[in-house]
Amino acid sequence: MAALQELREYVREISELGAAAALAAWDQRTQMPEKGAEARAKVVGRLERLSFERTISSRMGELLAAAEREPGESEVDRALVRVWKRDYTRHRAIPPDLYQKFVETTTRAETVWEKAKAASDFAMFRPHLAEVVGLVREIAKLIGFKESPYDAMVEEFEPGMTVATLRPLLGDLRKELVAFLKELGRGTPPRELPAGDFSLDAQRAFCREALQWIGYDFAAGRLDDSVHPFTMGIAPGDVRVTNRYQASEPFSALFGALHEGGHALYGQGNDPALAWTGLTGGASFGIHESQSRFWENQIGRSLPFWRFAQPHLARHVPSLAQTKPEDIWRHVNRAQPSLIRVEADEVTYNLHICLRFELEVELLEGRLDVAALPERWNRAMVDYLGVTPPDDRRGVLQDVHWSGGMFGYFPSYTLGNLYAAQITEAAEREIPRFWDKVQTGQLTPIREWLRENVHRHGRVYLPEELVKRVTGSGLSAEPFLRYVRAKYGEVYGL
Amino acid sequence: MAALQELREYVREISELGAAAALAAWDQRTQMPEKGAEARAKVVGRLERLSFERTISSRMGELLAAAEREPGESEVDRALVRVWKRDYTRHRAIPPDLYQKFVETTTRAETVWEKAKAASDFAMFRPHLAEVVGLVREIAKLIGFKESPYDAMVEEFEPGMTVATLRPLLGDLRKELVAFLKELGRGTPPRELPAGDFSLDAQRAFCREALQWIGYDFAAGRLDDSVHPFTMGIAPGDVRVTNRYQASEPFSALFGALHEGGHALYGQGNDPALAWTGLTGGASFGIHESQSRFWENQIGRSLPFWRFAQPHLARHVPSLAQTKPEDIWRHVNRAQPSLIRVEADEVTYNLHICLRFELEVELLEGRLDVAALPERWNRAMVDYLGVTPPDDRRGVLQDVHWSGGMFGYFPSYTLGNLYAAQITEAAEREIPRFWDKVQTGQLTPIREWLRENVHRHGRVYLPEELVKRVTGSGLSAEPFLRYVRAKYGEVYGL
Repeated sequence: MAALQELREYVREISELGAAAALAAWDQRTQMPEKGAEARAKVVGRLERLSFERTISSRMGELLAAAEREPGESEVDRALVRVWKRDYTRHRAIPPDLYQKFVETTTRAETVWEKAKAASDFAMFRPHLAEVVGLVREIAKLIGFKESPYDAMVEEFEPGMTVATLRPLLGDLRKELVAFLKELGRGTPPRELPAGDFSLDAQRAFCREALQWIGYDFAAGRLDDSVHPFTMGIAPGDVRVTNRYQASEPFSALFGALHEGGHALYGQGNDPALAWTGLTGGASFGIHESQSRFWENQIGRSLPFWRFAQPHLARHVPSLAQTKPEDIWRHVNRAQPSLIRVEADEVTYNLHICLRFELEVELLEGRLDVAALPERWNRAMVDYLGVTPPDDRRGVLQDVHWSGGMFGYFPSYTLGNLYAAQITEAAEREIPRFWDKVQTGQLTPIREWLRENVHRHGRVYLPEELVKRVTGSGLSAEPFLRYVRAKYGEVYGL
Repeated sequence: MAALQELREYVREISELGAAAALAAWDQRTQMPEKGAEARAKVVGRLERLSFERTISSRMGELLAAAEREPGESEVDRALVRVWKRDYTRHRAIPPDLYQKFVETTTRAETVWEKAKAASDFAMFRPHLAEVVGLVREIAKLIGFKESPYDAMVEEFEPGMTVATLRPLLGDLRKELVAFLKELGRGTPPRELPAGDFSLDAQRAFCREALQWIGYDFAAGRLDDSVHPFTMGIAPGDVRVTNRYQASEPFSALFGALHEGGHALYGQGNDPALAWTGLTGGASFGIHESQSRFWENQIGRSLPFWRFAQPHLARHVPSLAQTKPEDIWRHVNRAQPSLIRVEADEVTYNLHICLRFELEVELLEGRLDVAALPERWNRAMVDYLGVTPPDDRRGVLQDVHWSGGMFGYFPSYTLGNLYAAQITEAAEREIPRFWDKVQTGQLTPIREWLRENVHRHGRVYLPEELVKRVTGSGLSAEPFLRYVRAKYGEVYGL
């Protein structure tokens, strides 16, 4: 046990440095004056470097080896060794020079991507993306994999996940969704609510109230404005969310608040005993996303939720006082094939992800050349969604991820949607009168159930283990398909 | 030069960690949710420990020794070695166990002090203060001094300052001020402005405007609310101020803004070449205070300033539209002996400091027993100010400093007032039509002059050198005495 204790002490320092870096990042996006940017980059760089050095130090190697010789008895002890060994092994596999090159190349590629996107000029971006793909393939090889270089990359975001699992899962999902989209085409699209000009302060107040409904603890967090909404778990007792507000779209801000609030409840619900171990946060990016999607979509886009929320919305936005809950519910559940992933609805969103997954696997496996990417993208858009990107800005250039070398990240979004539907079915079974509770605004028992089953465990379980513990079965697309079929079927009068 | 370069690289890391700690401290007092406090203490403690370890490391010792063997040619190079050697030497002199005991004792003493002050019970605080004084004397001995243990302590705040300089300086100042206070008693006290209920948002807007007048750069800083106003230099390009607002007192918020703004201009005006060397900030606590006092008192409590500012104040606070600049000027320049230092006016403030200086020197030199402190305090209050504290809460227990072991800090306040008056006389000589500029709100040329003469140098010069460079002569109380005699003489119709 002495070895484990020493490991705990050693990683405590890394975790505390991580908290300082998280605060610096939050401040940078919400408070920092513009002239502070250059100095901030140095400070964050220093904190990350100190953490990185410790994560891959020979001392860390010794402590991990010793801890493996005297394994702990608890799941927490085993997870402690697992998560730090993963980072140690993965980062040690990459020579510092190569890592440096990767950072420089992706930084440059991201800058070029911004310009290329603005100019809708894939040719400008192409050599940079080719270089990034080359480096990612090299890194994947060094990290090692059994079947696909993609496995080495997806591991970073979804531990234990592989192409062998993702390919049939997403392939079947795609087929079902493409078919369902055709079905919807025969239904009656819901009417949109008339546009309006909604007070930003009223939206802010409503979002704050919504965060209180779902049990977000403002004594252990904050809500601020930012350009892009995000959640930052700074430290135990300090998990902050941000949001943005548009005068024309009050629902967009609300769903942003519920989405980020869902992420934040995860951090706020971590067992305090996990503090400073590296086991706080979530089991994976996908599981984390399931918590945001749960509150944003499963709850926030449900009819019972709007039966409860509409009168409260009307208090803040009197012009919506006469709007019926059913009309809001229909308005926020329209499905429409479109070009842009981040604007997509629940039915079409995952098709955007399936497309990206297939393309990035082909790129990493060397079966697709970067030069052929736009053509391949556009063909898939037609096949899956029936729309043709008029230019690369609204096509292959729309997302930042690949320029930053973040291959293997995209599936997290869809995994989050699938896990959220699985978890909702489990919650419906286990929480008495689940939808009655939603309809009467009793959301904290639901948060408690999530806390007990998901949040408190932090990173202790692998996603696969966690989803089995919570739902009784492994990852599956069925609950999600049941969910969209039922809801959108009703909205479209099928 | 290689040694100096290595030293620069080494201290860069300490400075970057310092910036992370400064941000954490700012956030703690302005943004942090309450439940984040415990984790924040750990993070700040870790950052400070990492900095401290590096400051006193044997590597630092080697780098300093090497740099001294190959001294640089510039004043910056020499200052670099001076400031780091001072910290290295002072901190190495204190054994870790003793330092630990000091931290624990002062932490406990501060907690007890809070309770003792609330209960006005000196006896409760006495043993803790006695222990703190004992430890400070022990530390002073280890650090070393020529004449008085007080010298070892005051060095931390005012490098180069000694009791031999302070005793006659403050002794003479005290005599002159006590005499002048008697004189004022024969004059006519100015009339107070009627009380009002002033909008906090209007005060906030006015303070923001005032910061813009004096040239505070909001692109390199922020203004936020806090319980106690403070300035935090986080990093180059990021120097933030806070303020507080009371409905009944619009002038208090304005002077708070000018005071903190004065501190902040110092940091914003540091030469960018000093970034990450440890030479940013100010020459001393006293010189730093001179910059806040300059804007708060020399400018902000002058009649020309109010001739300019009154119409602007009236825009924000229409109920003051009919108030004459002269009446505001008289209102903010009333002198009245009182019990509480932080509420004192410019004439009596320094008497509170003289008293504390004398008592703390006696305590550290072993000539005054802690048990005799309240009686000694109360007698001096009668002698200097003619008032008798009705209890220890409004007497010897009013300040936090001693409980925290901060002996030697108090003189900084008076030194700031004296330096400010010296600097003002120099500015009057060197800046054409100085008071015309103030009266027409042309304050940025004044900021430029301060930037050129004071701010850009950071910690490069010792306070004594700096004040000679700026004013042509050494530290003196005469300019301050001329200043208060002239202004208060006029206000009181002498």
